[in-house]
Formats: sequence, structure tokens, C-alpha cells
Amino acid sequence: MKLYKGSHKHLVAVDCIIFAYDIAEKEIKLLLIKRSIEPAKGKWSVAGGFVQDDESLDAAASRVLKRLTGLDHMHLSQSSTYGSLNRDPGARVISVSYSALIKIQDLSPDAAGLYHAHWRSILKLPELIFDHGTMVADALENLREQIKRKPVGFELLPEKFTLVQLQDLYEALYQRPVDKRNFRKKILAMNILEKLDEKEKETSRKGAWYYRFIRERYQVLTRNGFYFNLDVN
Amino acid sequence: MKLYKGSHKHLVAVDCIIFAYDIAEKEIKLLLIKRSIEPAKGKWSVAGGFVQDDESLDAAASRVLKRLTGLDHMHLSQSSTYGSLNRDPGARVISVSYSALIKIQDLSPDAAGLYHAHWRSILKLPELIFDHGTMVADALENLREQIKRKPVGFELLPEKFTLVQLQDLYEALYQRPVDKRNFRKKILAMNILEKLDEKEKETSRKGAWYYRFIRERYQVLTRNGFYFNLDVN
Repeated sequence: MKLYKGSHKHLVAVDCIIFAYDIAEKEIKLLLIKRSIEPAKGKWSVAGGFVQDDESLDAAASRVLKRLTGLDHMHLSQSSTYGSLNRDPGARVISVSYSALIKIQDLSPDAAGLYHAHWRSILKLPELIFDHGTMVADALENLREQIKRKPVGFELLPEKFTLVQLQDLYEALYQRPVDKRNFRKKILAMNILEKLDEKEKETSRKGAWYYRFIRERYQVLTRNGFYFNLDVN
Repeated sequence: MKLYKGSHKHLVAVDCIIFAYDIAEKEIKLLLIKRSIEPAKGKWSVAGGFVQDDESLDAAASRVLKRLTGLDHMHLSQSSTYGSLNRDPGARVISVSYSALIKIQDLSPDAAGLYHAHWRSILKLPELIFDHGTMVADALENLREQIKRKPVGFELLPEKFTLVQLQDLYEALYQRPVDKRNFRKKILAMNILEKLDEKEKETSRKGAWYYRFIRERYQVLTRNGFYFNLDVN
């Protein structure tokens, strides 16, 4: 006896929203592709595709991303699932979005070119198909919440960084200026950065001290009830 | 021409994880039903059902919840989507979970009985079918994060409440004791509670002052860069 007989089946897609932080240009970029099938063929889209019968959602997201862009071994987190009736004019498709935020410097320089993947600043995005604009906005909002509450920002910077570089990252993600004094006060008060005996001197004559994130201390503090909190105005 | 031809279709379900705070018993309860279809007929389950062709995911969640439990007009938030291959032994089913947290006192007393819905303390849950235990744990973890960062707890208490009642709620959600001094210090320092000129005298001879949440002040503070933060050990 076939179980669940008579229940409707649906096309299910995964869409991958990949952000990369570009420390040189101080901006967040989004991975876009030109869609290869109808409807909306040739229009800008995030990397997406249908879930097959024999793969989990997570596996589908990794497969689709690799096939379309060459990006592999990426830690994708599930964001939201989009299921409005007419979100895709081609058919009723339910889409599960996945997101990731990486350092653009970690990408091999030819990966993107080979697979026709494009990195566009989130400040200058072209029009995206369907509800991809909403997906991107939702994923970005999640990231903004996360970077306030968890020390994930340090993974997007080099091992040693200046406070200016750290602030640049927050400003890029928030898309607005952050109060410098308040930002420095908050991050230093958490006591999880070590000031190094070395200055970055390329961007100013006076130079700026390098810092490093002390992950071990953060972990000890967290076990003792400390919460990372970088709410900045 | 049929678009997306040849792509696999999937059964898609919604599962509703409804928590209710019981202020009298100081505990969080979960809405469970006895499953009416095979496989696992008669076993404990959250309220779930298949998404139909002509309804959005949100609409499906509301419909399923109402049909199985009589609960209506509930604000359901999407949590996560579960898509492992063998999560449901009946067939490959992708499930989108929705959650809500309500006051148990708001329920009409006969609603649950009529529809065979059962409220069980999260401290004493029976074994749940499939991955429903994981869904519940994930939703609970989300709630714990939320109640730290947003003033959602006040919606689960009466208009006027004591600090003991507020702490009871946090303890019920965290499933562990909270340091009383630290808790009171943090909540009062936020300056969003008004101490009323009235005491609750049923639970102790000395009595405990009633407070109320000043939503308007919270909104003004938030516009000026304040963040609710009730991280408690």
C-alpha cells in the first residue's frame, strides 16, 4: 500500500545566497549568475536549482552551488523557505534558501570566471529575478544580527587586523557609518582582543596598531556566562 | 511547453510547534496530537500535514493547525526546514516547521478537548515520531535566543506582573535556575519597567511589587540605539 497517496507533490528548489567580504574595497559582494533557463533566461539570479529525489536539502544546496559556480566545501546555513503560490512564474516552486559569508580573498582567482559567476557589491545590485531580492535582504538581515551577537566577523579578516579594518567590516555589513569611539570602547571592553606590538603603516603616517582575536579567551569567558555583544549605533 | 519538465517533485509538509506558557504551573507546555495515519498511527506528534497545491506554506500551517486542534488566528513563525532523505519512514517528505508561543490562559477551555489536542510539559515529553524531537529542540533554542534579545516575554504575562513571575518565565524557558540578583539588576537597569503602587500578596506575607512593561518607552529607547539584552546566568 502506498502511503500518503493523493497528497500533492511540489517542485522544491534551493537558492544559495553567497556573500563575500572584500577587505580591499571594504564592501560585501553577492554571488550572482545569469540564469540559463526559461522563464527569465539571461536575467540575474542567485545560484539555484531543483532538489532531486535522492539528496537532502543540504546536499542539494552544495551540489547546485558547485555546479553553477565551482565553489566547493562551503559552510552553507539554511536561511528561510519561500512558498508563495506565484513566486516563480514558471511553476509553483517552493524554495529553501541557504547562505554563507566568506572572504573574497580566499577564492581561487579563476573559479568565478570559469563558471560565469559574478560578484556584485550589495550597494549596486542589479534587479534580481522572482523573490531573490527578498531572499538576499532576509539573509543580510540575519547576518547583521549574527555579527552583533557572535564573533563571526574575525573570520572575515586576516589573523592580525586594525580596529579601522574591523569597523570597516561592520559598516559594510550595516551599510551605514558606525560611531568610532563607541565601537572601539565596546569591542575593547569585551577583553577578547590582544594588541600586538606592531603597526599597520600603509594607510596612515601615524600607523594603526594591529590586534588579534583571542579565541581561547572568548571561549573561556563564554563558558563563564559572557555574551559577545557589539550593538553599535 | 511545460517548464521545469523532468524535475522531481516532493511531498512537502508543515509541522506546527506550539508552546504555551502556563503561569500557574510555571512551565512551558507543548501541543501534541496522536497521529491518525500510518506510519506511526497513534503515536505522539506535533500537528502536521501536507501542503496542498493551491496554498502557501504559511496558509498550510494555519489550516493544518486549525483542523487538528481548533486553534485559530495564531501568529506562526517559520522555523526551519527538514529535508533528510529518511526522516519519514512513510515516504520522502520535506517538512517546514512553524512555531508559536502563547499564554495557556488565553485558550478557550474546551478547544483542546474537542480536537484531541494535548498539552504536555516540555520537562516530561513522551517520545515523538520521526524528527519531531529535533524540531521541538530547535524551536525551543530559537525561543531562548529571542527572549534574551527582545521583550517578547511580557506578552506571556498579565499586564501587571511581579519580578518573581518574570523570572519564573525565564527559568521555565531555560529549564534551569537564574541568579535572582543578577536578573533583577539587568531587567531594572534597562529602565523599561514601571513599578506600580500595588503588591501581589497571595504568594508571600511580605508581598511583591507589581510592575508593568512600558512599551512606549521601549520603542523610544530602541529608536535611539538601545538594545534589549537579558542575558542571564
